[in-house]
Amino acid sequence: MDPAHLAPTSPSRPRVVLIGCGFGGLEAVRILSRAPVEITLVDRTNHHLFQPLLYQVATAGVSAPAVSGPIRHILRREMQRGNLTVLRAEVTRIDAKARQVVLEDGSALPYDHLIVAAGATHSYFGHDDWAPHAPGLKTLADAFEIRSRIIGAFERAERCSDPEERQHWLNFVVIGGGPTGVELAGALVEIARHTLPDEFRRIDSRRARVWLVEGSDRILGAFDKSLSESARLQLSKLGVEVRTASRVTAIDADGVTYHDASQPDAPPRRLEARTVLWGAGVAASPLGRSLAETAGAQLDRAGRVQVEPDLTIPGHPEISVIGDLAAAKSYGRGEPKPVPGVSPAAKQMGRLAAHNLLRRLRGQPAERFRYRDYGSLATIGRKAAVVQLGVPGLGELKWSGYFAWLFWLFAHVYFLIGFRNRLIVLFDWAWSYWTFDRHARVVAQPEQEARNASA
Amino acid sequence: MDPAHLAPTSPSRPRVVLIGCGFGGLEAVRILSRAPVEITLVDRTNHHLFQPLLYQVATAGVSAPAVSGPIRHILRREMQRGNLTVLRAEVTRIDAKARQVVLEDGSALPYDHLIVAAGATHSYFGHDDWAPHAPGLKTLADAFEIRSRIIGAFERAERCSDPEERQHWLNFVVIGGGPTGVELAGALVEIARHTLPDEFRRIDSRRARVWLVEGSDRILGAFDKSLSESARLQLSKLGVEVRTASRVTAIDADGVTYHDASQPDAPPRRLEARTVLWGAGVAASPLGRSLAETAGAQLDRAGRVQVEPDLTIPGHPEISVIGDLAAAKSYGRGEPKPVPGVSPAAKQMGRLAAHNLLRRLRGQPAERFRYRDYGSLATIGRKAAVVQLGVPGLGELKWSGYFAWLFWLFAHVYFLIGFRNRLIVLFDWAWSYWTFDRHARVVAQPEQEARNASA
Repeated sequence: MDPAHLAPTSPSRPRVVLIGCGFGGLEAVRILSRAPVEITLVDRTNHHLFQPLLYQVATAGVSAPAVSGPIRHILRREMQRGNLTVLRAEVTRIDAKARQVVLEDGSALPYDHLIVAAGATHSYFGHDDWAPHAPGLKTLADAFEIRSRIIGAFERAERCSDPEERQHWLNFVVIGGGPTGVELAGALVEIARHTLPDEFRRIDSRRARVWLVEGSDRILGAFDKSLSESARLQLSKLGVEVRTASRVTAIDADGVTYHDASQPDAPPRRLEARTVLWGAGVAASPLGRSLAETAGAQLDRAGRVQVEPDLTIPGHPEISVIGDLAAAKSYGRGEPKPVPGVSPAAKQMGRLAAHNLLRRLRGQPAERFRYRDYGSLATIGRKAAVVQLGVPGLGELKWSGYFAWLFWLFAHVYFLIGFRNRLIVLFDWAWSYWTFDRHARVVAQPEQEARNASA
Repeated sequence: MDPAHLAPTSPSRPRVVLIGCGFGGLEAVRILSRAPVEITLVDRTNHHLFQPLLYQVATAGVSAPAVSGPIRHILRREMQRGNLTVLRAEVTRIDAKARQVVLEDGSALPYDHLIVAAGATHSYFGHDDWAPHAPGLKTLADAFEIRSRIIGAFERAERCSDPEERQHWLNFVVIGGGPTGVELAGALVEIARHTLPDEFRRIDSRRARVWLVEGSDRILGAFDKSLSESARLQLSKLGVEVRTASRVTAIDADGVTYHDASQPDAPPRRLEARTVLWGAGVAASPLGRSLAETAGAQLDRAGRVQVEPDLTIPGHPEISVIGDLAAAKSYGRGEPKPVPGVSPAAKQMGRLAAHNLLRRLRGQPAERFRYRDYGSLATIGRKAAVVQLGVPGLGELKWSGYFAWLFWLFAHVYFLIGFRNRLIVLFDWAWSYWTFDRHARVVAQPEQEARNASA
């Protein structure tokens, strides 16, 4: 590819390059497309993903196209404005000195302004050897892999003659008691107890066991303590065995070893399970290191880029970092507070980064980021969820159970990308609710390949 | 796995092993589940696939779960009868002498009766080196690969600075003028002309060219000549360039070389295209060879097993072969006629094989297979199809165009597995019809992996 060709078609306008089309990137590009700038949006995939429902793809509740959409389609109206180019490409490096972004084929995109919204991936806290045994959930490919393992575990159990080994195929460990781990664990028991029971002959799928292992002393740590306790109760009622204060020390093909922090002198404990899912650590995109090397940015322990109050990098007002890659603080009343890695925060950062960029072009001072926390939701399973909302004038509202679940459901449908996906997901959920079926239990890989992949 | 464990749970009943859960296998298992036999159904995947709509998955019109269903779910009522075991496993060999089926882990399934419905795969006529350049369409994994290549080609074109190379990314060749090739070619022009035009900035997707290359002198050779001609006209109107009497002699990463049989002395011709799809040759499952080796079965040139009028193998009344793996003849009035490789034929064979098995158990003579041909349908694209129906007393009805397309659409929705899938596919089609959108244009692979895979 000729770099010259990738230069903007209106060279007189400032060139903005945006890396990543998640929640933050999408908001930024929508604002910038109305401004006199020339935008190039680069993403390694062809789709925007509604990550809060990705666990539903992994657990066969919905199909992949229901919770994702082609970037070009989502931005088709913005593209009509004539200043937006979308490229599917992998950014390998940011060269802040030369002010260019380098792609996987060696070509470069020069920029006047850069917004980096490259997101995060899962981290195994230095134990990369755990990765093949405990897949994480960040991309559609991850979701298909997890779906294949869950379905495959029940299939292997049905073929298994040894009762002990059969039970190991029916044992599932989910590591990490955040929203993703809680959602996966809740969906797993629902599959075992409600979806599959009539479909096997030699195994009773209801004998599956699901453990949720969390290192700290409570699950859903971002929520109020009372809701953590409620979530734990709701999970137990569904059939999930919750192990808090349990630090994982080893993961292999046969299960998980953990240390019970409440009994420091006890020997390590072991859960024998052929399927282990990872919902624990998150590490920022490696592009953060690129910014550290060429722009002198500081990274925190999770690899996130420390940004100024206006979301730019110190000494580089032309570079903003937003979303999960940014170690941002919220500047409201009182002390600045760290911003959580949630989609509303990413959206708000995307909007501020875009507006600050336009302010700078007009010679106006940039504004500081203030995170407006409207609350948190987490679903646990059928008719089970927790909700914590900040309502101005009313203080904080907390509730859990059936109505929390309905609230969670409609909130997620409301924020889904596209009218069509909203209809489809509502239909899927109504269907699952009444029939207990999970229609997307289809695995493209045949048995032989699945076996080789896991070997 | 312990072979003993795989023995039936009611050893007094005859053991029936059924390989493959396509159209034929599904019909057979439904009948046999009502009889005093012990059935084991083996399939390498976990799903039954509605193959006539697989091209819609490949061209992003519908999602995979809409045209497939978990075998266990489809057969959940049959499983309640207590004599059916479903195994996801790969059969590596049939040992007709020992009367057992050998699985990929070395374990064996003994049988008293065997029904082989292992289907077909694509064949490159001895040119296996063409496979990486021209993927065929038989499985869901194939469909995802084709979808990824089609979407990827437009993405690469958008990134391409050389006008000639850019056009090569916008050129598509479909090889084979049967129903699959016609469907793919029709969908490709629709994507290029109706779905994508507003979504790119540097390319005009309408400049894509689609060639359909067929070796014989007409497309849709199974249809009446007048309908072949009509299909050709309809395709041309949509924008497909049809090349009949064109024998492919080479396929590589950059395109296709073919020989124009109507001009034997002309030099070979070349189509430069970065995306080539294979809808031509079909070869029977390699399990046919296993039957040749251990049961003395005769294979035809495509590797299909030559069967007796009652669908069993000569000398082995305990083995039936049905569906695309069988070289069967229809015994109606007049001379026996070869049976086409279509889904109604597979279903009818599945029913007869099951009933003949039960007749044999009761000591009754087996019946001969008679294929009832109710007609053929093929879709060409939006509002374009051909239909050829045999109506008793009325002779043959032929029509094409909009009403043929409506007929094709409702026939396919009617025969889809499951009420839920019928609703979803109807909704998908109504949506695509009104909006020209193809909602499943989502590719899980990121750019880097797609590039490596095609390298």
